[in-house]
Amino acid sequence: MSKFSIGVDFGTLSGRAVIVNVENGEEVAVSVFEYPHGVMDEKLPGGTSLGVDWALQHPQDYLDVFRETIPAVMKKAGVKAEDVIGVGTDFTACTMLPVMADGTPLCFIEKYKANPHAWIKLWKHHAAQDAANRLNSVAEERGETFLKRYGGKISSEWLIPKIMQIADEAPEIYDAADRFIEAADWVIWQLTGKEMRNTCTGGYKAMWHKHEGYPSNDFFKALNPKMEKLADEKLSRTLYPVGTRAGGITPEAAKLTGLIAGTAVAVGNVDAHVSVPAVGITSAGKMLAIMGTSTCHMLLGENEKTVPGMCGVVEDGIIEGFYGYEAGQSCVGDHFQWFVENCTPADYKAEADRRGIDLHALLTEKASALNPGESGLVALDWWNGNRSVLVDVDLTGMIVGMTLATKPEEVYRALIEATAYGTKMIIDTFEENGVPVDEYYAAGGIAEKNPFVMQIYADVTGKEMKISGSPQAPALGSAMFGALAAGKAAGGYDTIENAAAAMAKVKPFSYKPVAANVVVYKKLFAEYKILHDYFGRGANDVMKRLKDIKKATRG
Amino acid sequence: MSKFSIGVDFGTLSGRAVIVNVENGEEVAVSVFEYPHGVMDEKLPGGTSLGVDWALQHPQDYLDVFRETIPAVMKKAGVKAEDVIGVGTDFTACTMLPVMADGTPLCFIEKYKANPHAWIKLWKHHAAQDAANRLNSVAEERGETFLKRYGGKISSEWLIPKIMQIADEAPEIYDAADRFIEAADWVIWQLTGKEMRNTCTGGYKAMWHKHEGYPSNDFFKALNPKMEKLADEKLSRTLYPVGTRAGGITPEAAKLTGLIAGTAVAVGNVDAHVSVPAVGITSAGKMLAIMGTSTCHMLLGENEKTVPGMCGVVEDGIIEGFYGYEAGQSCVGDHFQWFVENCTPADYKAEADRRGIDLHALLTEKASALNPGESGLVALDWWNGNRSVLVDVDLTGMIVGMTLATKPEEVYRALIEATAYGTKMIIDTFEENGVPVDEYYAAGGIAEKNPFVMQIYADVTGKEMKISGSPQAPALGSAMFGALAAGKAAGGYDTIENAAAAMAKVKPFSYKPVAANVVVYKKLFAEYKILHDYFGRGANDVMKRLKDIKKATRG
Repeated sequence: MSKFSIGVDFGTLSGRAVIVNVENGEEVAVSVFEYPHGVMDEKLPGGTSLGVDWALQHPQDYLDVFRETIPAVMKKAGVKAEDVIGVGTDFTACTMLPVMADGTPLCFIEKYKANPHAWIKLWKHHAAQDAANRLNSVAEERGETFLKRYGGKISSEWLIPKIMQIADEAPEIYDAADRFIEAADWVIWQLTGKEMRNTCTGGYKAMWHKHEGYPSNDFFKALNPKMEKLADEKLSRTLYPVGTRAGGITPEAAKLTGLIAGTAVAVGNVDAHVSVPAVGITSAGKMLAIMGTSTCHMLLGENEKTVPGMCGVVEDGIIEGFYGYEAGQSCVGDHFQWFVENCTPADYKAEADRRGIDLHALLTEKASALNPGESGLVALDWWNGNRSVLVDVDLTGMIVGMTLATKPEEVYRALIEATAYGTKMIIDTFEENGVPVDEYYAAGGIAEKNPFVMQIYADVTGKEMKISGSPQAPALGSAMFGALAAGKAAGGYDTIENAAAAMAKVKPFSYKPVAANVVVYKKLFAEYKILHDYFGRGANDVMKRLKDIKKATRG
Repeated sequence: MSKFSIGVDFGTLSGRAVIVNVENGEEVAVSVFEYPHGVMDEKLPGGTSLGVDWALQHPQDYLDVFRETIPAVMKKAGVKAEDVIGVGTDFTACTMLPVMADGTPLCFIEKYKANPHAWIKLWKHHAAQDAANRLNSVAEERGETFLKRYGGKISSEWLIPKIMQIADEAPEIYDAADRFIEAADWVIWQLTGKEMRNTCTGGYKAMWHKHEGYPSNDFFKALNPKMEKLADEKLSRTLYPVGTRAGGITPEAAKLTGLIAGTAVAVGNVDAHVSVPAVGITSAGKMLAIMGTSTCHMLLGENEKTVPGMCGVVEDGIIEGFYGYEAGQSCVGDHFQWFVENCTPADYKAEADRRGIDLHALLTEKASALNPGESGLVALDWWNGNRSVLVDVDLTGMIVGMTLATKPEEVYRALIEATAYGTKMIIDTFEENGVPVDEYYAAGGIAEKNPFVMQIYADVTGKEMKISGSPQAPALGSAMFGALAAGKAAGGYDTIENAAAAMAKVKPFSYKPVAANVVVYKKLFAEYKILHDYFGRGANDVMKRLKDIKKATRG
C-alpha cells in the first residue's frame, strides 16, 4: 500500500491541502478553502474600525482550513488516515499574532477582541512603517551588524516592527501577550500541542541568526523599553530547522482533521521557501523564482556572503545545511495588471471581447509579434519601489523611448522586459558577490501560464528557465517536508534530498535562450543598467523629490 | 461706407477667406473650401505612385479657393467689390513648386504631369531628408555661418532640400523649371501677374538674409553642381518685406475672384507669422505661440542674436523693422491625441460615451481635479523629437514617477505639463541669450478651446497668457496686411502698427499664474531641466542608441 503525505499551503485569501503519494510525488487530490473573514482591512468582526494600511486575519479561518481540507483530500483521494504518514505546512510571512501561554489567540478572549492589535497581522499589514523606520535608524546608529544580512534594511512587514507597533500603540496587548508568534508556527502548535518555532521565519522575518541569535536586549530596549526582554519572555531562543518533526497530531487535532493521533507534523515553513525542494533544488547554485504579483527569489549557497539588496540570508532557512538567500522584486504581475487596467485603449478591449479572450492574452499576442528591441523602449520596473538590489521603496517607474507611433503592446512588452532586466540585476549581483547562480527555476502563476514572459526571461538572462512541474509547488513542498518529518521508518524520507529525488517535479519542457535575442537584450540591458544606476543610486534622486512634492500637495 | 479687406489663409487641407471691416477688425463673414485633391501622398491624379514620406498638392486647388471663397464672403457679408480695398494671404510653408517663366506650374504641362517632382511639395513632404542631411553636413564642413541663424540645422521641410531632391532625382524637371517658388508667392503671382517674393518665406525657409542674401553659389554648387546658379537663375535676389503691396488684382484675377481689377494685394506670408499682428503684436518682447498639433513660437526682437535651437531669425520676417524669431515644439496636440488613442482605458471610454463627451473632455475633467505635483510625474515632451531648443529629431519620450496607483488622468496631465515645460525652456533660452520675452500670447485650437491647458502654461511659465480674440488669427492677420497693402489713402493703413491698433484682437479674459501653483511648478521644472539636459545634451544618449537598436531589428 502506498503512503501519503499532506501539504497545507496557507495563502492570503485561502488555504489549500494537497495529498501526495510519497513514493512518486503524485498529487492525488486537492482541496481549497477560502477564508470566511478574508483580509480584514476596514473593520474587525465586532465592528471596530481599522486604520489606514491595516490588514488583519482571523485565526479561526486557519483552523477551518484544517477542518475542511484535510478530510476532503483524504476522501477525494480514497486514502485512509492510517496511510497518511506526515503533514507539512507553509504560510505567508510574516503573519503574526499575540497569544497566551497555552497558544490561545488574544483575539479569542472577550476582554481583548475589540482591540485590533489582538488580531493576526497579515504579511501585508503596512501600518508598522513608522516602527520599521525607527528600527532601521536605531540599528544604523548603533551599528548593528545584522542589517547587512537583510540588504541593509528591515521591512515593516517583518516581525519586530509589527511587535513594536503593538508595544507603542497598545501596551496593554503587549503586556497581556505571553508570546508573539508567526502564524506558521501557531498552526503547528494547534496540530501538535507544542510551540516549535522554525528557522525559516525566525531567520528571514525575526532577525534571528543560527550563531548570533536575536539582536541584543539592549537593542530591543532602545526600540521600546518595554521590549527589553522580548526574546526571552515572548519569543523563543530555540528554533528548529525546516523539516524537523515538530511532534505528532494531538487527539484534539485528530478530531479536527480526521488524521490519526501521532501522525508526524513538520515545523512551519514559508510558502516561497518550501517550494525550493518541490522543483528538486537541494544544493547550491540553483535559483528558484516564485513569479506572481511580485517575485521572490530563493537561492542556496555554501557560504554566508553579504550580497547588496538581498532580503535575507539564513543558515538552514530553506534547506538544512545550506545558507538560504532570498531576494525580491516588488512588482511583477502587478505591473502588467496595472498596465491592462490603466493604459489599454477601448479598441483593444473591444477586440479582446469580440474574440472572447482577455486583455493580457490580446496584448501578449500583439507583443509576441515584435522583435526584441523593436519597440525602442526601456523601462525601469519600479512601479512599486525596488526591493532587490536597491532596497528602496521610494523609487518609482520610468519609461523612455516613446514616439507618436508607440503602440500599447510595445509598452506592455517593455514592462515585461523591465522585470526581466530586474531579475538579471539580481542574478548578476549574487554572482558578483560570490554566490553563483548556475541554474534557474520558476514557479507561480506567471511561470505556469505565460510562455511569452518566460521566453523573454530566458533571452534576457541568457539562462534556461526550468518550470515547476506542479502548479501548487508550495503545497507539494510542504508534503515533502511532511514526509521528511515522518522519516524513512514510517515510509517517508530521512533527508530532503531523497524526498526531492522521488517527489520533486519540473515540466518536461523548458525555455531556452535564443541566441539572436540574447545579443539584442545584452545591449538593452546595458541601457537598463545605466538608467538603473542613474535613477537608483543617487546620481539623480528625482523620484524621491517628486514623491516629496506629491506628499506636500496632499499634506 | 465701411471698407473691407479680405484675408485668405491656405491650410493643409483647405483654404479659408475672411472678410474683415478695416475700421474695427470685425470679421463679417467666412468661407472655407476643402481642397478637392487634399494631400496627395499615395499617387498623382494620373495614377503615378508616390514614394514613402511624399506629400504633394494640386495648384488648381489653390485657385479654386480664390474662386470659391472670395465671392462667397462678399456675398455673405453683403459687401460690394468696390468696398474691398485689399487682399492679404498666408500659406503653409515651405510649400513649393517648379514653374515656367510665366508662372505656369510644370504639373499643368502635359509633358511633365506624370512626374511627381513637377507637383507642389507640401510643407510636410518628408522625402527630402537625405538631401537635408547632405546639406547640413556640407554646410558644417564649409563652416557656413548661416547655420547659426537656424539653430544649427536646416530642416528637410525647407526650400533648398526640396530643390536638391528635384535636382538629384529628376534633373529634367530641375532643368525645365524656370523658377522654384513658394506657393505663398505663387498665389500672389496669380492674383497680380507679378513674381514678388516675400521676406518671410525667403528668410525662414530659403536661408535668405537681408544683408547677406542667399548662401554662396559655391555652396549651392557643393550640394549639386547643377545648382550653382540656383539663386540667380531660378529664385530671385529681390524680396519684399511682408505688408508690401505686391500689385493690383489683374483682369483675369478679377474674373476669378469677383474683385475689382487693381485692388491691392499684399505679398505672401506664412500662417503662423501673419498671426502676430492679429493679436496686436507689433513691437519687441512679445511672444505669440500658435498651439495646435505642434506649437510654433514667434517673437520680435530689436537685435539679431544667436539663440540656440531656434528655427530661424529673419529681419523683416514678421514685422518690418524687427528681427522675427521663430522657435517650435514638434509635438503638442499630437502628444495628447497619442495618449487618448493609445493609453486611455475602456472604462474611461465607456464613461465618456455615457456622458456624451469626448475623451479629451473626460480626461481634462479628471486631470483638473489634481493639484500641481500631485501625480508625482514628470515627462519629457519629445514623442516627436525636440525642435527647440535641442534641434534633435532623434530624441524620444520619457516619463518618470509612475506607481501602481498612477491613473490615466495623471499621465495625461503630465504630458500637458511636459509641453508647458518645453515652452518655458524656449522662453528661458531666448531670455538668457538677450532676447526678452515680456508678454505671451497664444492662438490656435488649443489656446482657443482649452482653458485647462492654458492655465497650466500660465502656472508653469509664470506669465499671463493672452489669447487671440479671433479663432482665425491667420486670416485676420492676412486681412490686416491686405489693408496695409491698400494704404491709408484707400481707406486702409500706412503702418502695421496702425492696422493692429484698429483691427487686432485679444479675448477679454486671460490666464493668470496662480501663485501657489507657480511655486510647485518651479520645483517640477527644475526636475524637468535636469532630465532635459541629461537625456538631451549627451550625458546619456540612450534615446539614440535605442533608435539604432530599433532600426537594426527592422533590418
